[in-house]
Amino acid sequence: MPRPPVPTRRVTIIDVARHAGVSTTAVSKVLRNAYGASPQMQAKVRAAIDELGYRPSASARGLRGQTYTIGVMLPDIRNPFFADILDGINAQLDGTDYQVLIAASCNSEPGEAHVTDAMIDRNMDGVILIAPLTSRQRLDRIARTVPTVVVGRHGHSAVYDTVADDDFVGAGLIVAHLAGLGHRRIAHIEHHETDPVRLAEMPNAVRADGYRHAMHAHGLGEHIDIASTTYTQQGGYLGAQQLLARPQRPTAIFAGADIVAMGVLDALADAGLSAPSDISVAGYDNTTFAAFGPISLTTVDQAGHQIGTNAARLLLDRITDSSRPTTQVKLSPTLAARRTTAPL
Amino acid sequence: MPRPPVPTRRVTIIDVARHAGVSTTAVSKVLRNAYGASPQMQAKVRAAIDELGYRPSASARGLRGQTYTIGVMLPDIRNPFFADILDGINAQLDGTDYQVLIAASCNSEPGEAHVTDAMIDRNMDGVILIAPLTSRQRLDRIARTVPTVVVGRHGHSAVYDTVADDDFVGAGLIVAHLAGLGHRRIAHIEHHETDPVRLAEMPNAVRADGYRHAMHAHGLGEHIDIASTTYTQQGGYLGAQQLLARPQRPTAIFAGADIVAMGVLDALADAGLSAPSDISVAGYDNTTFAAFGPISLTTVDQAGHQIGTNAARLLLDRITDSSRPTTQVKLSPTLAARRTTAPL
Repeated sequence: MPRPPVPTRRVTIIDVARHAGVSTTAVSKVLRNAYGASPQMQAKVRAAIDELGYRPSASARGLRGQTYTIGVMLPDIRNPFFADILDGINAQLDGTDYQVLIAASCNSEPGEAHVTDAMIDRNMDGVILIAPLTSRQRLDRIARTVPTVVVGRHGHSAVYDTVADDDFVGAGLIVAHLAGLGHRRIAHIEHHETDPVRLAEMPNAVRADGYRHAMHAHGLGEHIDIASTTYTQQGGYLGAQQLLARPQRPTAIFAGADIVAMGVLDALADAGLSAPSDISVAGYDNTTFAAFGPISLTTVDQAGHQIGTNAARLLLDRITDSSRPTTQVKLSPTLAARRTTAPL
Repeated sequence: MPRPPVPTRRVTIIDVARHAGVSTTAVSKVLRNAYGASPQMQAKVRAAIDELGYRPSASARGLRGQTYTIGVMLPDIRNPFFADILDGINAQLDGTDYQVLIAASCNSEPGEAHVTDAMIDRNMDGVILIAPLTSRQRLDRIARTVPTVVVGRHGHSAVYDTVADDDFVGAGLIVAHLAGLGHRRIAHIEHHETDPVRLAEMPNAVRADGYRHAMHAHGLGEHIDIASTTYTQQGGYLGAQQLLARPQRPTAIFAGADIVAMGVLDALADAGLSAPSDISVAGYDNTTFAAFGPISLTTVDQAGHQIGTNAARLLLDRITDSSRPTTQVKLSPTLAARRTTAPL
C-alpha cells in the first residue's frame, strides 16, 4: 500500500521567519535586497529559504509590478521553424529574470483570442505573437494592453513592433533558382486566404505574390499555376495531388513552407514519383527537417534564430519604454539549395 | 513618421463600473457570478466589459485561489513525440477554464529547476513534467508544493502521479521483430546514463534494459552491442558512426527514440548506405516523422496522445483532491512495422 501523500502546502514567509528565528519584516527586507539587513541576517534567512524550499509568490509580486513572464504564442508546436524562433528568443533572454511561457493557438482566431486573453489575465510583462491571424483591430487592442511584438506578419502598427523576413524576396529566390535550372512549369502551393488585410500582411500571401511577380519577371507568366490549400503537411499532400492531376504536370513545385513540402514529398512517394528525378521540390523556412540528410530539401533560410533574438530585444525595449515609436525589422532571406531540385 | 503609440494602460474594474454606470461592487458581483446581480445589471456590465476589452487580473485571482494555469515542462520542443503528448493534454483540458503554458527545460537539471521554480512562483494550479532528469528528492519537494504529474519516467512516489509506457516491453517488441526477420547482430543506441536512480527510472535506461533482456531471450546474448550517446539527432548520428566502424558491423540498429533514428538514417546516407537494403533501422515513439511516407520508419507506438489525456486527467483529480493516494498509469506499447526494416 502506498503511504498517503503529504498534503500540498506552500511554504510561506512566516515559515521562513520562524525557521530562521527572525521577524517576517526581516525576511521581507532580505527578499527585496533592502537596506537594514545585516550580512548575518541575510545568511540566516537565505539558509532558511534553501532548507524549506521557499518560493516567493509571483501573484503577490504581480500586484506590485512585473511578473517577469514573457508569453510566446505559436500557431502550432509541430512546425519546426517555430522552434528556431524560440531558440533565438531564449538566447536573447538568457541571463535575465524573464521566463518564457509558450502557448499554442491551434491556428485559429478563437484559439488566438483564448491564448492572448489568458496571457493578459496572467499579467505577463510582454507577449510575442508568431504569425497571428487575429484582426488588426484586435492586435492593436492587445498591444495597448500589454507590450507586444508581432513576428512573421507584415504591415505597420503604431502600437506594436514587428519582425519578419522579406517573403516577397524569398519567393523570388526560389523562382530564380528553378528558372536557372531550366524549369518553366513552376507551380506553387499557397495557404488559401481571402481576408483583404491578411492578403496584404500574412507571409503566405506575400510569398504567393512574390512567386507571381518573379514568374512574370522571368517571362514565365503563362506558366503561373497555384494550388490553394493550407500551410500544413496535409495541405502539401492535397496540393501536390491537385498539381499531379493537371493535364500538363509542373516540372517543379515551390511549396510555401517546409512543412508543406513534406506533404508534397509524401504525395510524390505515394504516386511512385520522387524528387528531383521526376519533379523538383522546394520549401520555405530552412527547418532542421529540410537540412536532414535523407531529405535534403531546397528551401529559403529566413534565419529563425535571428528573428527570435530581434523579437525578444524589441520586446524588452518596449517593456522598458512603452512610448517609444514602433520598429519594423525586416530580415533578408537566403537560398539554401539542396538535393530536391535539379536541372530539368 | 509613425504616430506615437498609445501608452499601455490596463482597463480596470473602475473603468468598467464608470462605463456601465454602476458601482464597482456591482461589477465585482457580476464577475463572481454572485447572487444579487439582476439580469439587466449583468447585461450592462458584460457589455461594458466587451466594449472596453476588460480582463480581470489573474494575479488578483491568484491570491484568492486558483490561477487556472497548468504548466507543462518539456525537455525539448523539437522532439515531435512531445507534441503528441501535448495534443492529448489539450484535448483533455478542452472546455475547462485551464490554460496550458509550456516551458522548455533544455534537457538539463539546472534548466528544469529554473522552469519548475518559475511555475511555482507563478502559482500554477498544477504541473506536468515530461521526462524530467531532476532528482527524486527534488521531484517530491515540487509535488509537495504544487499538484504534479510526472510523464515518461518510471518509479513510484507517494506525492505525485506518473504516466509512462512500458518501455521494457516496447524494446522487446523491436528485438522480436528484428529477430523474426532473421537478424542476429542487432545493435542498440542508448542515452548515456550513470546516476543509479535514473538508471532505474528513466525510459532510456529501461529501454536499454529491455533490449538486453530480449536479446538474451532470443538466444542473441553474444550479439549485444550498445553505442552510448544521447537521445538527440546528433546522438543518433554519432552512435551510427561508432557502430558502422565495428570490425563486425550490425545488420540492424534499434535507436532508442525516433529522433535518434533520424540521426542514424542521416549517418547511413552520408556513408553511402541506406535502410533497409544495407542495414535495418528502427526507432521508438511513432512520431509524425516516423509515419512520414518517404521515411516510413519502423518504430514503437507509445500512444503519446493517450499519455497526455491520462496525465491531464490525473492532474485535474489531484488538484481537486490533493490527499488521494497516488496513481501509476502504465500503457502498453505496440509495434509499428514500416519500410526501414526488412528480412536479412
